[in-house]
Amino acid sequence: MRIGVLGTGAVGSTIGSGLIRAGHDVRMGSRTKDNAKAAAWVATAAAHASQGTFADAAAFGEVVFNCTAGANSLAAIEAAGPENLRDRILIDLANPLDFSKGMPPSLTVCNTDSLGEQIQRALPATKVVKILNTVNCKVMVDPSVVPGEHNLFVCGNDGAARAQVAAWISEWFGWPAGSCIDLGDITAARAVEMLLPLWVRLYGTLGTPNLNFRIMVGERPVS
Amino acid sequence: MRIGVLGTGAVGSTIGSGLIRAGHDVRMGSRTKDNAKAAAWVATAAAHASQGTFADAAAFGEVVFNCTAGANSLAAIEAAGPENLRDRILIDLANPLDFSKGMPPSLTVCNTDSLGEQIQRALPATKVVKILNTVNCKVMVDPSVVPGEHNLFVCGNDGAARAQVAAWISEWFGWPAGSCIDLGDITAARAVEMLLPLWVRLYGTLGTPNLNFRIMVGERPVS
Repeated sequence: MRIGVLGTGAVGSTIGSGLIRAGHDVRMGSRTKDNAKAAAWVATAAAHASQGTFADAAAFGEVVFNCTAGANSLAAIEAAGPENLRDRILIDLANPLDFSKGMPPSLTVCNTDSLGEQIQRALPATKVVKILNTVNCKVMVDPSVVPGEHNLFVCGNDGAARAQVAAWISEWFGWPAGSCIDLGDITAARAVEMLLPLWVRLYGTLGTPNLNFRIMVGERPVS
Repeated sequence: MRIGVLGTGAVGSTIGSGLIRAGHDVRMGSRTKDNAKAAAWVATAAAHASQGTFADAAAFGEVVFNCTAGANSLAAIEAAGPENLRDRILIDLANPLDFSKGMPPSLTVCNTDSLGEQIQRALPATKVVKILNTVNCKVMVDPSVVPGEHNLFVCGNDGAARAQVAAWISEWFGWPAGSCIDLGDITAARAVEMLLPLWVRLYGTLGTPNLNFRIMVGERPVS
């Protein structure tokens, strides 16, 4: 497939390289055509990699990943152009973390709204699916970095798109079938983005970003 | 030990009964001396149970559990009397959930503050330790309700008090040693309270409140 990746940071380059390993053609988008980090990534990723503006990457992709920092996501989406994303799936990996006030970061939006919902409102003709935002980028593309079973959460307003994205993540990055818990519509982005403060705290406590959550379930109550 | 329990709901009565099974004397506190739910609990719990006002329960306890609904916690603490809680450990189980706007609930405080921190500020001479707020009350007193390993999170400003409470929870309710992850000072209450929206969503998705989080960890990076 042709896949667009918005963002040139650690998440964008790790996802981009993972997608190329999975056999796809990837265009990385940024604010400018000649971004130095994107050029460096293209140089390592070789034949199946290209770069361009956010709009170039969005127009190129049959599906598009949002790998920008949460603080920049809405501007990146706007620059990508809602028309370029019409009727496509946008896979949103971003978290609305605010590092401007020091550590630990707070969230720029939470509780009664979320970045996922803001992005869906900005792209009414796009199927926004949020996934992978609760793990480090190395874990995103290689779940075996954290041994044992562990889970992802997927949400978005289109059920078929959620199922499609969960299947792609398994196929492309090796997440075992059943890893992904379907939380329903995009309002669940509140819940998965609000997990980040705990993730950051656990990173500090455990001394590694190679961590993830596993949901353990007991018996259903007799109804 | 003599233990005070603030709150007469499902959490208070479940914790109270669990503490009596563990061999303790428990006084349940509420707004009034003659609360009907507290009286019903005392009737089932028999010899080692008593009830009274919030202040009666706080004065009785060598250690005190806050099992009130988060929306009522600060008023309950105020009624309990900071002097009655001076130099004691208050074990805070509450979550600042707001059900007034329908489902799913939002939080009345989050992100840059938390209920745990509000309670600590209201009780500067008390060692507030937050724990158990991330599981259903049946799981609190019997972790085997959710099979397999799973975790609790503890936070509070006094390290010795955190360790003491984690040890008590193991001894009294059967949490295996090592279940409890120490997140440090009371600002971590933000992280564990912000886990509730995900907990509520998982309850809806999985169809049971008998669930918990297990933290899976990979290798530490070479530093």
